[in-house]
Amino acid sequence: MRPYVFVNVAASLDGKISDESRKQLRISCEEDLRIVDRLRAESDAIMVGIGTVLADDPRLTVKSAELREKRQKDGKEPNPLRVVVDSRCRVPLTARILNDEARTLVAVSRIAPEEKVREVKKVAEVAVFGEERVELSALLEFLHRKGVRRLMVEGGGTLISSLISQNLVDEIRIYYGPIFIGGRDSPTVCDGESFLKKCRIEKIERIGEGFAVTARFNR
Amino acid sequence: MRPYVFVNVAASLDGKISDESRKQLRISCEEDLRIVDRLRAESDAIMVGIGTVLADDPRLTVKSAELREKRQKDGKEPNPLRVVVDSRCRVPLTARILNDEARTLVAVSRIAPEEKVREVKKVAEVAVFGEERVELSALLEFLHRKGVRRLMVEGGGTLISSLISQNLVDEIRIYYGPIFIGGRDSPTVCDGESFLKKCRIEKIERIGEGFAVTARFNR
Repeated sequence: MRPYVFVNVAASLDGKISDESRKQLRISCEEDLRIVDRLRAESDAIMVGIGTVLADDPRLTVKSAELREKRQKDGKEPNPLRVVVDSRCRVPLTARILNDEARTLVAVSRIAPEEKVREVKKVAEVAVFGEERVELSALLEFLHRKGVRRLMVEGGGTLISSLISQNLVDEIRIYYGPIFIGGRDSPTVCDGESFLKKCRIEKIERIGEGFAVTARFNR
Repeated sequence: MRPYVFVNVAASLDGKISDESRKQLRISCEEDLRIVDRLRAESDAIMVGIGTVLADDPRLTVKSAELREKRQKDGKEPNPLRVVVDSRCRVPLTARILNDEARTLVAVSRIAPEEKVREVKKVAEVAVFGEERVELSALLEFLHRKGVRRLMVEGGGTLISSLISQNLVDEIRIYYGPIFIGGRDSPTVCDGESFLKKCRIEKIERIGEGFAVTARFNR
Protein backbone atom coordinates (compact mmCIF):
# COMPACT_ATOMS: atom_id res chain seq x y z
CA MET A 1 0.00 0.00 0.00
CA ARG A 2 1.26 3.46 -0.89
CA PRO A 3 -0.20 6.98 -0.93
CA TYR A 4 -1.78 8.55 -4.00
CA VAL A 5 1.28 10.14 -5.62
CA PHE A 6 0.77 13.42 -7.36
CA VAL A 7 3.63 15.31 -9.06
CA ASN A 8 3.44 19.07 -9.58
CA VAL A 9 6.09 20.93 -11.52
CA ALA A 10 6.56 24.09 -13.60
CA ALA A 11 8.50 23.93 -16.85
CA SER A 12 9.33 25.92 -19.95
CA LEU A 13 7.73 24.85 -23.24
CA ASP A 14 10.91 22.90 -23.95
CA GLY A 15 10.54 20.94 -20.70
CA LYS A 16 13.23 22.65 -18.62
CA ILE A 17 12.71 23.35 -14.93
CA SER A 18 15.79 25.60 -14.67
CA ASP A 19 18.75 26.65 -16.80
CA GLU A 20 22.29 25.24 -16.92
CA SER A 21 23.24 27.07 -13.72
CA ARG A 22 20.39 25.21 -11.96
CA LYS A 23 19.47 28.39 -10.14
CA GLN A 24 15.77 28.86 -9.43
CA LEU A 25 13.94 30.55 -12.29
CA ARG A 26 10.49 32.03 -11.97
CA ILE A 27 8.50 29.94 -14.44
CA SER A 28 5.08 29.96 -12.73
CA CYS A 29 2.71 32.91 -12.67
CA GLU A 30 0.91 34.27 -9.57
CA GLU A 31 -2.25 32.37 -10.43
CA ASP A 32 -0.41 29.08 -10.71
CA LEU A 33 1.41 29.68 -7.43
CA ARG A 34 -1.98 30.10 -5.70
CA ILE A 35 -3.15 26.80 -7.18
CA VAL A 36 0.08 25.10 -6.07
CA ASP A 37 -0.41 26.45 -2.54
CA ARG A 38 -3.91 24.97 -2.45
CA LEU A 39 -2.60 21.64 -3.76
CA ARG A 40 -0.01 21.65 -0.98
CA ALA A 41 -2.68 22.36 1.63
CA GLU A 42 -4.72 19.43 0.32
CA SER A 43 -1.77 17.03 0.66
CA ASP A 44 -0.62 15.01 3.66
CA ALA A 45 3.05 15.28 2.71
CA ILE A 46 5.23 17.19 0.22
CA MET A 47 8.29 15.44 -1.18
CA VAL A 48 11.40 16.73 -2.99
CA GLY A 49 14.77 15.34 -3.95
CA ILE A 50 17.95 16.62 -2.31
CA GLY A 51 19.01 18.31 -5.60
CA THR A 52 16.03 20.65 -5.31
CA VAL A 53 16.85 21.41 -1.67
CA LEU A 54 20.45 22.26 -2.58
CA ALA A 55 19.48 24.35 -5.63
CA ASP A 56 16.39 26.20 -4.39
CA ASP A 57 16.37 25.88 -0.58
CA PRO A 58 12.55 25.69 -0.51
CA ARG A 59 10.40 25.98 2.64
CA LEU A 60 7.67 23.71 1.20
CA THR A 61 5.11 25.23 3.54
CA VAL A 62 1.59 26.43 2.82
CA LYS A 63 1.85 30.16 2.12
CA SER A 64 -1.80 31.11 2.73
CA ALA A 65 -2.68 31.66 6.42
CA GLU A 66 -6.29 30.90 5.53
CA LEU A 67 -5.38 27.50 4.10
CA ARG A 68 -3.22 26.68 7.14
CA GLU A 69 -6.14 27.59 9.42
CA LYS A 70 -8.49 25.43 7.40
CA ARG A 71 -6.11 22.49 7.84
CA GLN A 72 -6.07 23.08 11.61
CA LYS A 73 -9.89 23.25 11.73
CA ASP A 74 -9.83 19.85 10.00
CA GLY A 75 -7.66 18.51 12.86
CA LYS A 76 -4.41 18.57 10.85
CA GLU A 77 -1.11 20.30 11.44
CA PRO A 78 -0.93 23.70 9.69
CA ASN A 79 1.58 22.36 7.16
CA PRO A 80 1.94 18.94 5.54
CA LEU A 81 4.89 16.73 6.46
CA ARG A 82 7.97 17.59 4.38
CA VAL A 83 9.95 14.69 2.95
CA VAL A 84 13.46 14.92 1.46
CA VAL A 85 14.84 12.02 -0.57
CA ASP A 86 18.50 12.28 0.35
CA SER A 87 20.41 8.99 -0.03
CA ARG A 88 23.71 10.37 1.29
CA CYS A 89 22.17 12.74 3.89
CA ARG A 90 23.55 15.85 2.21
CA VAL A 91 20.83 18.18 3.49
CA PRO A 92 22.50 21.28 5.03
CA LEU A 93 21.61 21.77 8.70
CA THR A 94 20.73 25.36 7.76
CA ALA A 95 18.30 24.30 4.99
CA ARG A 96 14.89 25.98 5.28
CA ILE A 97 13.23 22.59 4.88
CA LEU A 98 14.58 21.74 8.36
CA ASN A 99 13.12 24.86 9.99
CA ASP A 100 10.41 24.60 12.67
CA GLU A 101 7.47 25.65 10.50
CA ALA A 102 6.60 22.02 9.78
CA ARG A 103 7.74 18.50 10.52
CA THR A 104 10.33 16.97 8.18
CA LEU A 105 11.35 13.44 7.33
CA VAL A 106 14.77 12.94 5.74
CA ALA A 107 14.86 9.64 3.86
CA VAL A 108 18.42 8.34 3.58
CA SER A 109 20.10 5.10 2.48
CA ARG A 110 22.59 2.95 4.36
CA ILE A 111 25.58 4.82 2.89
CA ALA A 112 24.59 8.05 4.66
CA PRO A 113 27.40 9.12 7.06
CA GLU A 114 26.40 8.24 10.66
CA GLU A 115 27.74 11.48 12.10
CA LYS A 116 25.66 13.63 9.72
CA VAL A 117 22.57 11.50 10.35
CA ARG A 118 22.99 12.09 14.11
CA GLU A 119 23.12 15.86 13.53
CA VAL A 120 20.05 15.88 11.30
CA LYS A 121 18.14 13.74 13.79
CA LYS A 122 18.23 16.68 16.21
CA VAL A 123 15.93 18.70 13.95
CA ALA A 124 14.10 16.12 11.83
CA GLU A 125 13.07 12.50 11.62
CA VAL A 126 15.57 10.39 9.67
CA ALA A 127 14.66 6.99 8.25
CA VAL A 128 16.78 4.56 6.25
CA PHE A 129 15.58 2.87 3.03
CA GLY A 130 17.84 0.86 0.72
CA GLU A 131 21.56 0.29 0.44
CA GLU A 132 23.03 3.03 -1.75
CA ARG A 133 19.93 4.82 -2.96
CA VAL A 134 16.67 5.45 -1.16
CA GLU A 135 14.31 2.66 -2.16
CA LEU A 136 11.32 4.72 -3.18
CA SER A 137 8.66 2.02 -2.94
CA ALA A 138 9.75 1.26 0.66
CA LEU A 139 9.66 4.97 1.49
CA LEU A 140 6.14 5.28 0.07
CA GLU A 141 4.95 2.26 2.09
CA PHE A 142 6.48 3.84 5.20
CA LEU A 143 4.64 7.08 4.51
CA HIS A 144 1.38 5.20 4.01
CA ARG A 145 1.83 3.48 7.37
CA LYS A 146 2.36 6.93 8.91
CA GLY A 147 -1.05 7.96 7.57
CA VAL A 148 0.02 9.80 4.41
CA ARG A 149 -2.72 9.20 1.84
CA ARG A 150 -2.00 11.99 -0.59
CA LEU A 151 1.64 12.76 -1.39
CA MET A 152 2.63 15.74 -3.51
CA VAL A 153 6.02 15.58 -5.24
CA GLU A 154 7.53 18.90 -6.25
CA GLY A 155 10.69 17.75 -8.04
CA GLY A 156 13.36 17.76 -9.15
CA GLY A 157 13.79 15.97 -12.43
CA THR A 158 15.80 13.07 -11.03
CA LEU A 159 13.25 12.16 -8.36
CA ILE A 160 10.33 12.55 -10.78
CA SER A 161 12.11 10.34 -13.31
CA SER A 162 12.76 7.62 -10.73
CA LEU A 163 9.15 7.68 -9.53
CA ILE A 164 7.58 7.59 -13.01
CA SER A 165 9.93 4.90 -14.31
CA GLN A 166 9.16 2.74 -11.25
CA ASN A 167 5.39 3.13 -11.79
CA LEU A 168 4.98 5.06 -8.55
CA VAL A 169 3.13 8.10 -9.88
CA ASP A 170 -0.66 8.34 -10.23
CA GLU A 171 -0.98 11.86 -11.55
CA ILE A 172 1.24 14.63 -12.84
CA ARG A 173 0.40 18.29 -13.32
CA ILE A 174 2.83 20.37 -15.36
CA TYR A 175 2.47 24.13 -15.63
CA TYR A 176 4.13 25.24 -18.86
CA GLY A 177 5.22 28.88 -18.80
CA PRO A 178 5.42 30.92 -22.05
CA ILE A 179 9.21 30.66 -22.28
CA PHE A 180 12.02 28.64 -23.80
CA ILE A 181 15.10 27.98 -21.69
CA GLY A 182 17.15 25.63 -23.86
CA GLY A 183 20.40 24.01 -22.81
CA ARG A 184 21.57 20.46 -23.32
CA ASP A 185 22.56 20.42 -19.62
CA SER A 186 19.54 22.24 -18.19
CA PRO A 187 17.49 20.11 -15.78
CA THR A 188 14.20 18.91 -17.22
CA VAL A 189 10.91 17.62 -15.81
CA CYS A 190 12.28 14.08 -16.10
CA ASP A 191 16.02 13.46 -15.99
CA GLY A 192 17.82 10.32 -14.78
CA GLU A 193 17.98 7.61 -17.44
CA SER A 194 15.50 7.51 -20.28
CA PHE A 195 12.50 5.18 -20.23
CA LEU A 196 9.21 5.38 -22.07
CA LYS A 197 5.95 5.66 -20.16
CA LYS A 198 2.53 6.35 -21.61
CA CYS A 199 -0.03 8.49 -19.80
CA ARG A 200 -3.54 9.85 -20.37
CA ILE A 201 -3.92 13.59 -20.72
CA GLU A 202 -6.96 14.48 -18.65
CA LYS A 203 -7.08 18.24 -18.56
CA ILE A 204 -5.45 21.24 -20.24
CA GLU A 205 -6.23 24.67 -18.78
CA ARG A 206 -4.87 28.07 -19.64
CA ILE A 207 -3.50 29.75 -16.52
CA GLY A 208 -2.14 33.28 -16.79
CA GLU A 209 0.04 33.40 -19.90
CA GLY A 210 0.83 29.68 -19.67
CA PHE A 211 -1.16 26.49 -19.30
CA ALA A 212 -1.32 23.45 -17.06
CA VAL A 213 -1.63 19.85 -18.21
CA THR A 214 -2.88 17.12 -15.91
CA ALA A 215 -2.06 13.55 -16.92
CA ARG A 216 -2.66 10.20 -15.26
CA PHE A 217 -0.74 6.95 -15.25
CA ASN A 218 -2.30 3.52 -14.82
CA ARG A 219 -1.43 1.88 -11.50
CA MET B 1 15.27 40.24 -45.05
CA ARG B 2 14.59 36.65 -44.09
CA PRO B 3 11.73 34.18 -44.56
CA TYR B 4 8.95 33.68 -42.02
CA VAL B 5 10.51 30.97 -39.84
CA PHE B 6 8.19 28.38 -38.44
CA VAL B 7 9.43 25.50 -36.24
CA ASN B 8 7.46 22.27 -35.98
CA VAL B 9 8.47 19.53 -33.60
CA ALA B 10 6.96 16.63 -31.63
CA ALA B 11 7.97 16.09 -28.01
CA SER B 12 7.08 14.10 -24.94
CA LEU B 13 5.43 15.97 -22.04
CA ASP B 14 8.90 16.31 -20.51
CA GLY B 15 10.19 18.04 -23.65
CA LYS B 16 12.21 15.19 -25.15
CA ILE B 17 12.31 14.59 -28.91
CA SER B 18 14.00 11.19 -28.56
CA ASP B 19 15.60 9.03 -25.88
CA GLU B 20 19.25 8.69 -24.87
CA SER B 21 19.97 6.44 -27.86
CA ARG B 22 18.75 9.30 -30.13
CA LYS B 23 16.94 6.77 -32.29
CA GLN B 24 13.70 7.97 -33.84
CA LEU B 25 10.69 7.46 -31.58
CA ARG B 26 7.12 7.67 -32.75
CA ILE B 27 5.79 10.59 -30.70
CA SER B 28 3.23 12.01 -33.14
CA CYS B 29 -0.14 10.46 -33.89
CA GLU B 30 -1.59 9.89 -37.38
CA GLU B 31 -3.67 13.05 -37.17
CA ASP B 32 -0.65 15.16 -36.28
CA LEU B 33 1.39 13.61 -39.11
CA ARG B 34 -1.33 14.67 -41.58
CA ILE B 35 -1.18 18.22 -40.22
CA VAL B 36 2.62 18.22 -40.48
CA ASP B 37 2.39 17.02 -44.08
CA ARG B 38 0.06 19.92 -44.90
CA LEU B 39 2.39 22.37 -43.14
CA ARG B 40 5.26 21.03 -45.25
CA ALA B 41 3.23 21.43 -48.45
CA GLU B 42 2.51 25.06 -47.50
CA SER B 43 6.20 25.85 -47.02
CA ASP B 44 8.79 26.96 -49.57
CA ALA B 45 11.60 25.12 -47.82
CA ILE B 46 12.08 22.58 -45.00
CA MET B 47 15.18 22.85 -42.84
CA VAL B 48 16.85 20.38 -40.44
CA GLY B 49 20.18 20.15 -38.65
CA ILE B 50 22.71 17.48 -39.60
CA GLY B 51 22.11 15.70 -36.25
CA THR B 52 18.55 14.95 -37.34
CA VAL B 53 19.74 13.68 -40.73
CA LEU B 54 22.26 11.35 -39.06
CA ALA B 55 19.78 10.09 -36.43
CA ASP B 56 16.56 9.78 -38.44
CA ASP B 57 17.56 9.85 -42.14
CA PRO B 58 14.37 11.75 -43.06
CA ARG B 59 13.10 12.28 -46.62
CA LEU B 60 11.45 15.60 -45.75
CA THR B 61 9.09 15.28 -48.67
CA VAL B 62 5.34 15.83 -48.84
CA LYS B 63 3.72 12.44 -48.30
CA SER B 64 0.29 13.20 -49.77
CA ALA B 65 0.13 12.89 -53.59
CA GLU B 66 -2.85 15.25 -53.51
CA LEU B 67 -0.86 17.95 -51.73
CA ARG B 68 2.04 17.52 -54.17
CA GLU B 69 -0.35 17.89 -57.09
CA LYS B 70 -1.86 20.99 -55.56
CA ARG B 71 1.62 22.50 -55.28
CA GLN B 72 2.23 21.77 -58.98
CA LYS B 73 -1.10 23.31 -59.96
CA ASP B 74 0.09 26.41 -58.07
CA GLY B 75 3.21 26.46 -60.29
CA LYS B 76 5.54 25.06 -57.62
CA GLU B 77 7.74 21.99 -57.52
CA PRO B 78 5.98 18.99 -55.96
CA ASN B 79 8.17 19.21 -52.85
CA PRO B 80 9.65 22.21 -51.02
CA LEU B 81 13.40 22.78 -51.12
CA ARG B 82 15.20 20.73 -48.44
CA VAL B 83 17.89 22.52 -46.44
CA VAL B 84 20.48 20.80 -44.21
CA VAL B 85 22.50 22.88 -41.75
CA ASP B 86 25.75 20.94 -41.83
CA SER B 87 28.82 23.02 -40.83
CA ARG B 88 31.32 20.20 -41.47
CA CYS B 89 29.51 18.66 -44.45
CA ARG B 90 28.93 15.36 -42.68
CA VAL B 91 25.81 14.45 -44.66
CA PRO B 92 26.20 10.85 -45.94
CA LEU B 93 26.03 10.59 -49.74
CA THR B 94 23.44 7.85 -49.21
CA ALA B 95 21.20 10.06 -47.02
CA ARG B 96 17.57 10.09 -48.18
CA ILE B 97 17.59 13.88 -47.99
CA LEU B 98 19.93 13.82 -51.02
CA ASN B 99 17.61 11.62 -53.11
CA ASP B 100 16.01 12.91 -56.30
CA GLU B 101 12.50 13.44 -54.92
CA ALA B 102 13.24 17.11 -54.23
CA ARG B 103 15.99 19.69 -54.51
CA THR B 104 18.37 20.01 -51.56
CA LEU B 105 20.65 22.75 -50.30
CA VAL B 106 23.47 21.73 -47.96
CA ALA B 107 24.61 24.74 -45.93
CA VAL B 108 28.21 24.29 -44.77
CA SER B 109 30.88 26.47 -43.16
CA ARG B 110 34.43 27.18 -44.30
CA ILE B 111 35.81 24.24 -42.29
CA ALA B 112 33.91 21.69 -44.40
CA PRO B 113 36.39 19.34 -46.15
CA GLU B 114 36.74 20.35 -49.82
CA GLU B 115 36.75 16.78 -51.09
CA LYS B 116 33.44 15.96 -49.37
CA VAL B 117 31.90 19.22 -50.58
CA ARG B 118 32.83 18.26 -54.16
CA GLU B 119 31.12 14.89 -53.77
CA VAL B 120 27.96 16.40 -52.30
CA LYS B 121 27.84 19.03 -55.06
CA LYS B 122 27.14 16.23 -57.55
CA VAL B 123 23.73 15.61 -55.97
CA ALA B 124 22.84 18.85 -54.18
CA GLU B 125 23.54 22.55 -54.05
CA VAL B 126 26.21 23.42 -51.47
CA ALA B 127 26.66 26.93 -50.11
CA VAL B 128 29.12 28.26 -47.53
CA PHE B 129 28.09 30.48 -44.58
CA GLY B 130 30.42 31.38 -41.71
CA GLU B 131 33.84 30.23 -40.56
CA GLU B 132 33.37 27.23 -38.26
CA ARG B 133 29.61 27.11 -37.89
CA VAL B 134 26.92 27.93 -40.41
CA GLU B 135 25.92 31.54 -39.83
CA LEU B 136 22.17 31.12 -39.64
CA SER B 137 21.15 34.71 -40.32
CA ALA B 138 23.25 34.69 -43.52
CA LEU B 139 21.69 31.38 -44.56
CA LEU B 140 18.20 32.78 -43.99
CA GLU B 141 19.00 35.88 -46.07
CA PHE B 142 20.33 33.61 -48.84
CA LEU B 143 17.09 31.59 -48.75
CA HIS B 144 15.03 34.77 -48.91
CA ARG B 145 16.97 35.88 -51.99
CA LYS B 146 16.21 32.49 -53.55
CA GLY B 147 12.49 33.23 -53.07
CA VAL B 148 11.86 31.28 -49.86
CA ARG B 149 9.19 33.19 -47.97
CA ARG B 150 7.98 30.51 -45.58
CA LEU B 151 10.60 28.23 -44.01
CA MET B 152 9.62 25.25 -41.88
CA VAL B 153 12.24 23.97 -39.42
CA GLU B 154 11.81 20.38 -38.27
CA GLY B 155 14.64 20.09 -35.74
CA GLY B 156 16.67 18.96 -34.07
CA GLY B 157 17.12 20.53 -30.67
CA THR B 158 20.48 22.11 -31.41
CA LEU B 159 19.30 23.94 -34.56
CA ILE B 160 16.05 25.04 -32.87
CA SER B 161 18.00 26.34 -29.90
CA SER B 162 20.40 28.33 -32.11
CA LEU B 163 17.52 29.83 -34.10
CA ILE B 164 15.41 30.83 -31.07
CA SER B 165 18.36 32.24 -29.12
CA GLN B 166 19.35 34.32 -32.17
CA ASN B 167 15.81 35.72 -32.53
CA LEU B 168 15.33 34.00 -35.87
CA VAL B 169 12.06 32.19 -35.16
CA ASP B 170 8.61 33.71 -35.70
CA GLU B 171 6.44 30.80 -34.67
CA ILE B 172 6.82 27.40 -33.08
CA ARG B 173 4.33 24.56 -33.00
CA ILE B 174 5.02 21.72 -30.57
CA TYR B 175 2.95 18.55 -30.59
CA TYR B 176 3.15 17.00 -27.14
CA GLY B 177 2.45 13.26 -27.14
CA PRO B 178 0.97 11.52 -24.06
CA ILE B 179 4.31 10.07 -22.97
CA PHE B 180 7.29 10.68 -20.73
CA ILE B 181 10.73 9.77 -22.04
CA GLY B 182 13.07 11.05 -19.33
CA GLY B 183 16.84 10.96 -19.51
CA ARG B 184 19.33 13.62 -18.56
CA ASP B 185 21.05 13.02 -21.92
CA SER B 186 17.96 12.68 -24.11
CA PRO B 187 17.69 15.35 -26.81
CA THR B 188 15.06 18.00 -26.10
CA VAL B 189 13.12 20.55 -28.15
CA CYS B 190 15.83 23.09 -27.35
CA ASP B 191 19.38 21.96 -26.57
CA GLY B 192 22.63 23.89 -27.15
CA GLU B 193 23.37 26.37 -24.39
CA SER B 194 20.62 27.74 -22.20
CA PHE B 195 19.10 31.16 -22.78
CA LEU B 196 15.74 32.56 -21.77
CA LYS B 197 13.26 33.68 -24.38
CA LYS B 198 9.64 34.67 -23.79
CA CYS B 199 6.90 33.84 -26.26
CA ARG B 200 3.13 34.23 -26.58
CA ILE B 201 1.04 31.09 -26.52
CA GLU B 202 -1.52 31.56 -29.29
CA LYS B 203 -3.30 28.26 -29.58
CA ILE B 204 -3.63 24.95 -27.76
CA GLU B 205 -5.51 22.16 -29.53
CA ARG B 206 -6.06 18.57 -28.58
CA ILE B 207 -4.96 16.28 -31.40
CA GLY B 208 -5.42 12.55 -31.00
CA GLU B 209 -4.29 11.63 -27.49
CA GLY B 210 -1.88 14.57 -27.33
CA PHE B 211 -2.09 18.29 -27.98
CA ALA B 212 -0.34 20.95 -30.04
CA VAL B 213 0.75 24.36 -28.79
CA THR B 214 1.43 27.23 -31.16
CA ALA B 215 3.52 30.09 -29.79
CA ARG B 216 4.89 33.24 -31.36
CA PHE B 217 8.03 35.27 -30.76
CA ASN B 218 8.31 39.00 -31.35
CA ARG B 219 10.56 39.88 -34.29
